[in-house]
Amino acid sequence: METLLLNKDDVHENTPMAELIVAVEEAFQAYENGDAQMPAKSYIDLPQYNGDFRSMPAYLDAGDWDAAGIKWVNVHPDNPDAFELPTVMGTMVYSDPKNAYPLAIMDGTELTMKRTGAAAAVATDHLAVDDATSFGLVGAGVQSYTQLEAISQVRDIEKVVVSDLNEGRVARFIDHFGDDFDVEEGSITDAGHCDILSTVTPVEDPIVHETDVGDHTHINAMGADAAGKHEIDDDVLLDSKLVIDDYSQTTHSGEINVPWSDGVLDDDDIYGEIGEIVTDKKAGRTADDGVTVFDSTGLAIQDVAAAHVVYTHANEHENGTQFDLLGV
Amino acid sequence: METLLLNKDDVHENTPMAELIVAVEEAFQAYENGDAQMPAKSYIDLPQYNGDFRSMPAYLDAGDWDAAGIKWVNVHPDNPDAFELPTVMGTMVYSDPKNAYPLAIMDGTELTMKRTGAAAAVATDHLAVDDATSFGLVGAGVQSYTQLEAISQVRDIEKVVVSDLNEGRVARFIDHFGDDFDVEEGSITDAGHCDILSTVTPVEDPIVHETDVGDHTHINAMGADAAGKHEIDDDVLLDSKLVIDDYSQTTHSGEINVPWSDGVLDDDDIYGEIGEIVTDKKAGRTADDGVTVFDSTGLAIQDVAAAHVVYTHANEHENGTQFDLLGV
Repeated sequence: METLLLNKDDVHENTPMAELIVAVEEAFQAYENGDAQMPAKSYIDLPQYNGDFRSMPAYLDAGDWDAAGIKWVNVHPDNPDAFELPTVMGTMVYSDPKNAYPLAIMDGTELTMKRTGAAAAVATDHLAVDDATSFGLVGAGVQSYTQLEAISQVRDIEKVVVSDLNEGRVARFIDHFGDDFDVEEGSITDAGHCDILSTVTPVEDPIVHETDVGDHTHINAMGADAAGKHEIDDDVLLDSKLVIDDYSQTTHSGEINVPWSDGVLDDDDIYGEIGEIVTDKKAGRTADDGVTVFDSTGLAIQDVAAAHVVYTHANEHENGTQFDLLGV
Repeated sequence: METLLLNKDDVHENTPMAELIVAVEEAFQAYENGDAQMPAKSYIDLPQYNGDFRSMPAYLDAGDWDAAGIKWVNVHPDNPDAFELPTVMGTMVYSDPKNAYPLAIMDGTELTMKRTGAAAAVATDHLAVDDATSFGLVGAGVQSYTQLEAISQVRDIEKVVVSDLNEGRVARFIDHFGDDFDVEEGSITDAGHCDILSTVTPVEDPIVHETDVGDHTHINAMGADAAGKHEIDDDVLLDSKLVIDDYSQTTHSGEINVPWSDGVLDDDDIYGEIGEIVTDKKAGRTADDGVTVFDSTGLAIQDVAAAHVVYTHANEHENGTQFDLLGV
């Protein structure tokens, strides 16, 4: 038997975003319904290399399909300067739950960007105003592309405002999307007054304040993935309808981790988990809502759901490279 | 950059056993000295498929070299009958600790057999009589081969006695090793009266009793890897100099897990961990010792050490298949 190897380009080309958004929503549903297993991320900290490894195994049963796998991913901030490598790299092993055969091994870096965009789209679909047409981005780095790619699947986005201190990143983003959307550079305030805002920066001092945000903006806070990171001012978080992806991950490393640790924000300030919303246990946006925030840390079930979509699509289209790894 | 793919044959051909035994001993030393990180195995239990997945990440610094990686491995006992697949399959991702690049992806099934043999050899080297020449095996399945392969590196084995209820397995074993050793079929008692005995069966009712074992036999109890498994009679364990690989794993799923749970065997009955012996904190075999037992559950640091040896050897000899997975 052979294992399908899917490199970065294969993952990119075999991720139909509309299908991925559905699969990630089903993953959130399965997790909420107790039909998923997601052991806590385990960390290997290597201070001597200023880096760490994280293992993210998961299984989920979405009813029509189930999937299992593990993502092995790192954060080594010195990589770009020291090794000309990305800070974050991932390797995903996607396995058949019924017999554990490794169906595919794929680039987990590209996969992470795709599933992160899809998670923002799921939250946006439930939390943004129905007639949203404008989308703001704070941060135009590698994670920004799949935000627009995914969110434009759930709302008819016409106008995009992108804000980044780095002119080159802004220019690349506009060059990439300029033919499909009305994209312009703007301030954080310009971006924050769009119907939907996604923040994808690694900052530790909030850069989005109350005056930067529209009255009914939905914010996807995607940047924080470690203790100390914090993009959105506490006043915005406290005054918003605040939705998280997973309680333990969010309080440990999500957008709210700093005010949480400081005691500024507590359980009463959290409206609910995304799983409660996609299963209709709690309402998404209602007529009374102002600003909404989705605090996304990224869950292993998203990776497994994304790997399922990528593998299924690649297999059907005979993409990728077959390799007999196990000799069975 | 490319990642080296190493299939089953590549792993087999690039594991110089003498080097592997040294590397596994260094891994035990590093773990004992606090120079390794080994988060607890995390499990995904899938009773609907009568199976489970286990993720085994680790890092170790042996001084001259360090290594990181993760093994994703399963136990699905119905696989042989239902899917013509092995019960256990593993996939190993071996990463550069300094920047986390995945240097190699390799068959973790073959790797597991190799590193399990190597662990038995390390224990045997410290616990068997110096002039051991006879080796008994209870169980002639897939794990038995690397037991002899490895143990014959640390003692001059001449005579081998193999005991298994399955005649085909015995015949295959004798056919494989008959040219290099004086191999004969025998009873459990015959095998247990050799200088060294390795047990590699999945039984839950002990099959090796006190009368089956010589006065100075060293026993490698390799078979138990889950709660309920138990190869060696409690009387043998209680009367022996008992060495374990890792306290939490052994009491949970090792040879002693059943008497441990029953309160028949406790901390006072454990002589020490293998790490304490290879670092000379505790003595190996002394003139006063009778039967010695090594209870091996298999540690993630063994996998990482083995992957280091395999990758280094394969890379030097330009073996394996290069593949650009991440596109960086």
